Amino acid sequence: MYDRIKGFRDFYPEEMAARRETIDTLEDTARRYGFREIGTPALERAEMWTDKSGDDIVEELYAFEDQGGRHVTLTPELTPTVARMVVAKQQELSKPIKWFSTRPFWRYEQVQQGRQREFYQTNVDIFGSAEPEADAEILAWAADALTNLGLTGEHFEFRISHRDILGGVLETYDAEVDTDDAIRAVDKSDKLSTAEYHDLLVEAGLDYDQAAEFDDLVAGGDLEEVKAFAETERVTDAVENLQAVLAAAEDFGAREYCTISLETARGLDYYTGVVFECFDSTGEVSRSVFGGGRYDDLIEGFGGQPTPAVGVAPGHATLSLLCQRAGVWPDEELTTDYYVLQIGDTRTEAARITQTLRDRGHVVETDVAGRSFGAQLDYADSINAETVVIVGEQDLANDELTIKDMETGDQTQVPVDEFPGDRDRPTFDDFA
Amino acid sequence: MYDRIKGFRDFYPEEMAARRETIDTLEDTARRYGFREIGTPALERAEMWTDKSGDDIVEELYAFEDQGGRHVTLTPELTPTVARMVVAKQQELSKPIKWFSTRPFWRYEQVQQGRQREFYQTNVDIFGSAEPEADAEILAWAADALTNLGLTGEHFEFRISHRDILGGVLETYDAEVDTDDAIRAVDKSDKLSTAEYHDLLVEAGLDYDQAAEFDDLVAGGDLEEVKAFAETERVTDAVENLQAVLAAAEDFGAREYCTISLETARGLDYYTGVVFECFDSTGEVSRSVFGGGRYDDLIEGFGGQPTPAVGVAPGHATLSLLCQRAGVWPDEELTTDYYVLQIGDTRTEAARITQTLRDRGHVVETDVAGRSFGAQLDYADSINAETVVIVGEQDLANDELTIKDMETGDQTQVPVDEFPGDRDRPTFDDFA
Repeated sequence: MYDRIKGFRDFYPEEMAARRETIDTLEDTARRYGFREIGTPALERAEMWTDKSGDDIVEELYAFEDQGGRHVTLTPELTPTVARMVVAKQQELSKPIKWFSTRPFWRYEQVQQGRQREFYQTNVDIFGSAEPEADAEILAWAADALTNLGLTGEHFEFRISHRDILGGVLETYDAEVDTDDAIRAVDKSDKLSTAEYHDLLVEAGLDYDQAAEFDDLVAGGDLEEVKAFAETERVTDAVENLQAVLAAAEDFGAREYCTISLETARGLDYYTGVVFECFDSTGEVSRSVFGGGRYDDLIEGFGGQPTPAVGVAPGHATLSLLCQRAGVWPDEELTTDYYVLQIGDTRTEAARITQTLRDRGHVVETDVAGRSFGAQLDYADSINAETVVIVGEQDLANDELTIKDMETGDQTQVPVDEFPGDRDRPTFDDFA
Repeated sequence: MYDRIKGFRDFYPEEMAARRETIDTLEDTARRYGFREIGTPALERAEMWTDKSGDDIVEELYAFEDQGGRHVTLTPELTPTVARMVVAKQQELSKPIKWFSTRPFWRYEQVQQGRQREFYQTNVDIFGSAEPEADAEILAWAADALTNLGLTGEHFEFRISHRDILGGVLETYDAEVDTDDAIRAVDKSDKLSTAEYHDLLVEAGLDYDQAAEFDDLVAGGDLEEVKAFAETERVTDAVENLQAVLAAAEDFGAREYCTISLETARGLDYYTGVVFECFDSTGEVSRSVFGGGRYDDLIEGFGGQPTPAVGVAPGHATLSLLCQRAGVWPDEELTTDYYVLQIGDTRTEAARITQTLRDRGHVVETDVAGRSFGAQLDYADSINAETVVIVGEQDLANDELTIKDMETGDQTQVPVDEFPGDRDRPTFDDFA
């Protein structure tokens, strides 16, 4: 007997039904926004990450040499792939380009709750617009997708910032500050004590007074105060862009879910403008569920024409935890409209009824295993059949069928030529 | 600039829309039959193939050692994975187990038309029934799925046989016959001259007279003649099982697509009973599109309780070629219900209209790139928008909008409070 690999999951039908409902909700919402589905490869050249990405993601790659000597990797995220696809057809594609897809990705990391080595994301991106409306449309899609899942503003919030605010404020200090280190310290600050946090800022180049002042400014989150403190074009532009995105989000119905949070920095290096993370407010400790933001330089970095871009990628593992805590995760159970039960040699008639009901779009099972009456009824129960149509030899001799309501156990006899008849979805109640 | 790996495909939105429609048709058909979706890992232990499968598939594995020293492989097919999943929960699962899934698989093989190294299949299987009705339900699903795609009996046929017929006939010869070699010769026979075919049969152990006799018997495809020739229980049972499957397929509406074809052997070693292949009758040379059959020993071979199984797995690359040749492949184009065009500072009103239409389930885009009137109209055209709603500052001052039919170019003005109003899907015609 073989076992599955650590960090890889099997999804049996009940759980898969709930996942499919969730994926459908996210994708249907994306389709309404005019995002178009794309299909992308599981393998790419490893250089797409080893050339440019941070060390963390490179260490986690499932990379290997294929039989043709190519250095390839299972893709750990989608962004470099869509960037490659945009570059490959940049002349033909009409802009803005709005794409989505749902698929697995792979990273060799520590397995824990909500984090497997194979994980599913729905990626939603806009290429070719630098306008705040594009950022706001991504936020609006994310908010709409989550509320369509049954979540409300009580369950989640989007913490939003702009990459240039922290960087711009840090560069105003009369000190040699390692901006990346300082931003990483901010990113981790909610998991640290104040002293530890300030120590990290000092390691990055600030002195302790500056660290305390910087901490206050960032924690305060007052955009006008930040602008006044820095008095640089970079910070002013960043603040105004963030404000413009929030104004557009107001028009698009997503502003109410957004909180300005200058601590929000995002781990990946390619972000350039507005960044945001979705936090789960249902637990005692609020947790990041997913994130997104603007990455205007990536397409050019991949050899394309300068093409601004913004996107988000909800992960389905953390999203299902959020939905479960909020009590809106779909029931993990099978549903079946009809089970057509055969007693004796009634296959021909049972098949006719089964086919007719299936042609009308219903979920219908019938016996394919030569089972007894009791075994068929148990099976019908196990798949949560709503109605059982009993096709018995004796009944058929009288041109009758028996229709059984599985919830109440009630049953009644019905003339064969009246079932299913003209009714689209006949049940026991129609004949009672 | 990076390029994609040979044998791996990017699917842009137009082509993806056609693929999605096809996948939806196959999956919707499976759902109606009561097949339940499962989710399965991309990676498995390589031993799942190297221990048991034929050499061909092992040579084509994308196998490697992961960071934890596991010998893993990208899965080249689904069957061993579902077998593993059945074994892992065999006590809990109510039988028959009916599963489906659509996903990519990977094999390092020669790239050609209809064959990539990454390829998609919809796998459909029944576990736990040895009855002919299970085989027939798989045939019925496949026939229903293909006809739901718009194909007819003119476009495809299922060539059907039973594994024990060839094996059983061969063992009646008073000669040391290597059955596997002989069956492989039969499998290849339609690509060989008669002389080459007979040479291969002789290499497998028959003499030339026997080879000619065997060739005649197999090509004749007369089940009663085969039964009379062999006069063994094995062949009699196989013929009767095949006849029983065809009788059930008659009740299930799939018989008309089936042709008895004793040459049909299937490559994979794990098949045990009825086997079939779907052939494309649209071209000059009929080609195998996909195949399936019964594999009753595999679950036990994986350490489970004896569990009969039967399944089929249409591949989407060959299926799309079949549909294209038959003229039923969906149009590869985008569809958009509405484009909401903004002129001047009308974002708030445009956003209201956009949101209302999206809430009603329509595909709606609006400007997120600060484009001019002309650029927006070009974009609306490029996404095949049916209706353009023009929200202009001047119109709005008069509480009006302009509704434009993109096919005819006709447009008319409409009071703001009547759009979209109570109509679910208002178009130009409603206001003309």
